[in-house]
Amino acid sequence: MHELLQKLTVLVGENNVLTGDAVRQRATSWFDNTPMSAAAIVRPGTTAEVTAVIQCCAEHGVALIPMGGLTGFVEGAVAGDQQIGLSLERLTRIESFDVENRSVVVEAGVPLQALQEAAEAHGLHFPVDLGARGSCTIGGMTATNAGGNEVLRRGMMREQILGMEVVLANGEVLTNLRPLIKNNTGYDLKQLFIGSEGSLGVVTRLCLRLRPKHLSHSTALVATDSFDKVAHLLRHLEGALGGRLSAYEVMWQNHYAFIIDDEQTHKAPLPTDYPFYVLVQAANYHELEADIFQSALEQAMSDELLVDAAVASSLAQQADLWAIRDDIERLTVGLAPYIGYDVSLPIQAMNAYVTDLTETINARWADAKMVVFGHLGDGNLHLFIHIGPELSAEDKEAVNQMVYEPLEALQGSISAEHGIGHQKKRYLKYSRSDTEIAWMRRLKQTFDPENRLNPGVIF
Amino acid sequence: MHELLQKLTVLVGENNVLTGDAVRQRATSWFDNTPMSAAAIVRPGTTAEVTAVIQCCAEHGVALIPMGGLTGFVEGAVAGDQQIGLSLERLTRIESFDVENRSVVVEAGVPLQALQEAAEAHGLHFPVDLGARGSCTIGGMTATNAGGNEVLRRGMMREQILGMEVVLANGEVLTNLRPLIKNNTGYDLKQLFIGSEGSLGVVTRLCLRLRPKHLSHSTALVATDSFDKVAHLLRHLEGALGGRLSAYEVMWQNHYAFIIDDEQTHKAPLPTDYPFYVLVQAANYHELEADIFQSALEQAMSDELLVDAAVASSLAQQADLWAIRDDIERLTVGLAPYIGYDVSLPIQAMNAYVTDLTETINARWADAKMVVFGHLGDGNLHLFIHIGPELSAEDKEAVNQMVYEPLEALQGSISAEHGIGHQKKRYLKYSRSDTEIAWMRRLKQTFDPENRLNPGVIF
Repeated sequence: MHELLQKLTVLVGENNVLTGDAVRQRATSWFDNTPMSAAAIVRPGTTAEVTAVIQCCAEHGVALIPMGGLTGFVEGAVAGDQQIGLSLERLTRIESFDVENRSVVVEAGVPLQALQEAAEAHGLHFPVDLGARGSCTIGGMTATNAGGNEVLRRGMMREQILGMEVVLANGEVLTNLRPLIKNNTGYDLKQLFIGSEGSLGVVTRLCLRLRPKHLSHSTALVATDSFDKVAHLLRHLEGALGGRLSAYEVMWQNHYAFIIDDEQTHKAPLPTDYPFYVLVQAANYHELEADIFQSALEQAMSDELLVDAAVASSLAQQADLWAIRDDIERLTVGLAPYIGYDVSLPIQAMNAYVTDLTETINARWADAKMVVFGHLGDGNLHLFIHIGPELSAEDKEAVNQMVYEPLEALQGSISAEHGIGHQKKRYLKYSRSDTEIAWMRRLKQTFDPENRLNPGVIF
Repeated sequence: MHELLQKLTVLVGENNVLTGDAVRQRATSWFDNTPMSAAAIVRPGTTAEVTAVIQCCAEHGVALIPMGGLTGFVEGAVAGDQQIGLSLERLTRIESFDVENRSVVVEAGVPLQALQEAAEAHGLHFPVDLGARGSCTIGGMTATNAGGNEVLRRGMMREQILGMEVVLANGEVLTNLRPLIKNNTGYDLKQLFIGSEGSLGVVTRLCLRLRPKHLSHSTALVATDSFDKVAHLLRHLEGALGGRLSAYEVMWQNHYAFIIDDEQTHKAPLPTDYPFYVLVQAANYHELEADIFQSALEQAMSDELLVDAAVASSLAQQADLWAIRDDIERLTVGLAPYIGYDVSLPIQAMNAYVTDLTETINARWADAKMVVFGHLGDGNLHLFIHIGPELSAEDKEAVNQMVYEPLEALQGSISAEHGIGHQKKRYLKYSRSDTEIAWMRRLKQTFDPENRLNPGVIF
């Protein structure tokens, strides 16, 4: 290792090979304060340096763990003490905006928020948005196919990627940064790397699609008296608002009531005793569209799809409504110790799934609490489960089984947007067949036969 | 071959192994009336039969050419006399509509129009649309990542595919038909098969995403006095109409004037002497949205982005405007012999590309005619080139070079939506690097080491 680190120092400079305390001062991730245990963190400054680092480590038989903003939830970028972290943190250039073509080329280490702000400054909009926007990077979001707040309308990270530069395990650089929406010229290789969690190659640059900027949002919190109406209201609003419906965030009563509680932090825009709440938002490009939003809600009310509604009439009120949906801290503190989940399943299967899961958990832990919310428009639910003041590894495993196992028969997914990493490997079988997993392994073998890039994630 | 055909007859039934005249009666494709030369056409009726046919042919070392509706333009499904056509024409079941989840599972042989109509009947919309809708199949559209009329708004075929069942060259069936918008559980294997032109596996079933149905369209033909304004108007309309802009079809003056000509077939909605025309369309979900469309055009007029406009005020007028854009027959007849192209490139490079290409071609063939039109919003241009009454193979090759070679430096694509097939293989190098092509070959080797599925397409 010592010889390797010396060589790496020659390749990227002394300041860019961190060892010892400089590594230990860093946390493993945003959700794990344990000091990093990597043998070193290497910070190349160019694609050529990334290539040189990969080749050098390959010669020494040392594995590399690509690292973005470390905001992932699934232990997907954790380097052991015989491994080296490959941080893209110096690749932060926004290389070229093409306003006519509505596209941009960026390096992998650019933080999401920096891209969002640069796009806004050019009168455009980058539509992937998530809570970690200040820290997560475009490269990490590509490796994990990030989702977030606007998937219903604009898709996940995959749908924004026009081109990619990726360094492979053998040091070859696969580059296609053509800023084209349409390019049917053979296999679309970049698709393979999106969501592969850094295990097939190291993404260094991306060409991304940008969208027109909206004028404003219309936002409302509505309540329904049954889950069927939650699903029906979604179809109604999609139909009424066309492509402009940008958020359809469901909250089960257990979530809404838990967040509102005694109204210390959040005033209650609606009473806390309805079974379901939905935070609805549409993007407006013309002032008349706020009227269309209003009339779509009125129609829903007169069709009895909803029983109550609070429509935000100011940016401050919009922020207050989102603060309820986004108050994750209240959940993590109030439900500690808790386990969080990110599952997806067909909409019509959701309510029974949640009801059955609640029963299963309560049968074993009578005082367990579960709160349920999520991006219902995308089929994506987040569950926070608290079974009691203690949470042993065995209990956690038992809850995991209760949550994941039923998803197989329901055609669901154990990970809608967070990925697999090391954390969910054991449960991958509930979402992917043996044949699929065998072919994932074959692709890994094809691209990284020595298992040098993020070994051990996914399968 | 005789022994193989006997075995296939046992597997799929006598009526489903066509030979001799039954094969020769079929045309090679919709654009090539030459009788098919395949040794046989096999028509399996289930995924299990597809698997059995693939395994049986593999044992005999005979290659299979998967066949959909045969509406492709690039010689992508042409079976030689020692090869067998694998037609999915009997796999025409629409298996299950899920209205709540806005998704559907279909077999690969379902024609596009059948799916579109079934979706409409359920109050939903399948957004990929193209001229061959009555004949092209969902499986073929997947294998070619079909584009068409609504890409600007809803993406290509790739963006509609939630799940896939595909039979591999070794007879394994890779199935993941989960109807999920979000499913970040390892490598997204289905992406590899989309656009792979049947060379990596035979798609047998698909789970597709459906969208809300629109109420109406707003449609206008507008004229601009410069290409810069064509590009600027696109940004203006995207901004004004949000996600509802569904078509932005540019016609160079040479195209519009050629189609209108003496007004025998088409009345001229606008004079024929403007340099550029754009057919603009937006999907409306509320009656107020027609007003927004009108006001967006008025704003463009007062900003001098356009110089003339004809707004359709009835379905008949909309149809008349589209008839101008869609009158391909007038081009194919009036420009015969012609060569048609389907390229894409960054918008700001388009005008110079067309101007330079016109000069290059006219320098060699003084009487050459070129008409240019296309899905400008997607960066996609169609060119029809006529160099004179004779078109030799050498001339065709020379024109191909003139069209394709400049695209490399411009970051363009030699095939925006039609694919490569056998026809464009020689020019693939202008859109994809040697490294990319080498990795395509490696993937082909991984999935189909004996080269049994559609050998020879793409590279």
